[in-house]
Amino acid sequence: MTRRFKLTLAYQGTAYHGWQIQAAGKATIQQTVQDALSIVLKESIQIVGASRTDAGVHALGQVAHFDSATDEDPYRLRKSLSALVPTDISVVALEEVDFAFHAQESVQLKQYAYYVYLSPLPYTFWESYAWQLPPTLDIAAMQAALPPFVGRHNFLGFCASDSTAKTFEREVSAANIERIAALPFLGNADSLPLYAFRIAGKGFLKFMIRNIMGTLVEIGQGKRDTDSIQELLLKQDRRLAGPTAPAKGLFLEKIIYRG
Amino acid sequence: MTRRFKLTLAYQGTAYHGWQIQAAGKATIQQTVQDALSIVLKESIQIVGASRTDAGVHALGQVAHFDSATDEDPYRLRKSLSALVPTDISVVALEEVDFAFHAQESVQLKQYAYYVYLSPLPYTFWESYAWQLPPTLDIAAMQAALPPFVGRHNFLGFCASDSTAKTFEREVSAANIERIAALPFLGNADSLPLYAFRIAGKGFLKFMIRNIMGTLVEIGQGKRDTDSIQELLLKQDRRLAGPTAPAKGLFLEKIIYRG
Repeated sequence: MTRRFKLTLAYQGTAYHGWQIQAAGKATIQQTVQDALSIVLKESIQIVGASRTDAGVHALGQVAHFDSATDEDPYRLRKSLSALVPTDISVVALEEVDFAFHAQESVQLKQYAYYVYLSPLPYTFWESYAWQLPPTLDIAAMQAALPPFVGRHNFLGFCASDSTAKTFEREVSAANIERIAALPFLGNADSLPLYAFRIAGKGFLKFMIRNIMGTLVEIGQGKRDTDSIQELLLKQDRRLAGPTAPAKGLFLEKIIYRG
Repeated sequence: MTRRFKLTLAYQGTAYHGWQIQAAGKATIQQTVQDALSIVLKESIQIVGASRTDAGVHALGQVAHFDSATDEDPYRLRKSLSALVPTDISVVALEEVDFAFHAQESVQLKQYAYYVYLSPLPYTFWESYAWQLPPTLDIAAMQAALPPFVGRHNFLGFCASDSTAKTFEREVSAANIERIAALPFLGNADSLPLYAFRIAGKGFLKFMIRNIMGTLVEIGQGKRDTDSIQELLLKQDRRLAGPTAPAKGLFLEKIIYRG
């Protein structure tokens, strides 16, 4: 009898060409997990992921589902799968779910975090996980620029030019920037300010969050007005927004499902 | 005119054969930093480090000193050096000091932290920085075993067999285990308990901290009595203590100098 499983994954995106399966020879998270699952379950498994994280983007709570005829206990499956995937992928949870659950279609909200730290020089323990920016960055100006993003808008002006999306309307339900505590690994180094930009919504366009972040940083650098976001949303011209922020600072934090 | 500089370094030890310069072809932190400094200063520089961290051990606050005839400003030197060292090394500080300062001889106290997390399965964002142990580990028993370590003792029983130390007496000024807050990168994964074992003293023998940690973990696993430490310190037989804990969980946290 076929059963459906929900898989929660954490991964470091650094070594991968993103989530989505690509041409042969390009390592992706989906391919890696799918191959490992197929070995564990001794059948060809297809996994459906909630979010197509880009190359280099990390995840704390990516979700996927797959179907299998196995009669194995989910905890034992989780252990076997853990042993088979590389150390940059963690199997955070594996549970049996109802067939009504679909990793993509049942999504209610996705939350991403983009980490930034202010320092004149890079700090090795954060280098793979956050964007280093000069201490002069005006975080208050960036914070002040956020409100226009919230709500339903056409985000064409913040979308990658090679996007295959059919519509560019997306709804952002929340966006904020907050200072977070130093990582324990900071130790006695200069106490560098660390910030998380968090954004939540049902779905996002390709590069949308990183383009918003790149635009916010230009506001923080004084290169752009705090009240310029409204205009960018109206003009819908990608050339007017800021540069795409580096992938390494972006984390898919969590996905909330209906019900 | 020759000037003396104090260098504070943070590094990820993963890719290195420890701090100390080795035979050609083996990458070490000392060699890497010394080579970069020699290029920046256009003279052959020798650096003297405070602590010979082992292969794979990390540092948040390693300290070294060097002498140079440069008339360059220390902050500019720090920037040039930062740009030249690999991303797994950070130049946390560089300042001019009095010739009375010696990175090794002026040490008052060194503090190390050993990170442990309790989880049935590894968690990718902590894998390079902490030792994963089963949730059944009895942390209270390990805590209770600590007091005998404090004070001046012969630590031969906790020393690597190939140590070149002349005496095995060392003074431990403090040792404790405390639960620390989750790393921000934990996100919505299971909230895994994370502990830091901290130990401070003027100096330590080769593998001493990792052998103490391996012994404590055997106490936490119920393989060894909480009150067995006193006996190990008296018998001074390396074969009686526990295994050497993995290098990856150990951090040289900070070094305090006299004056």
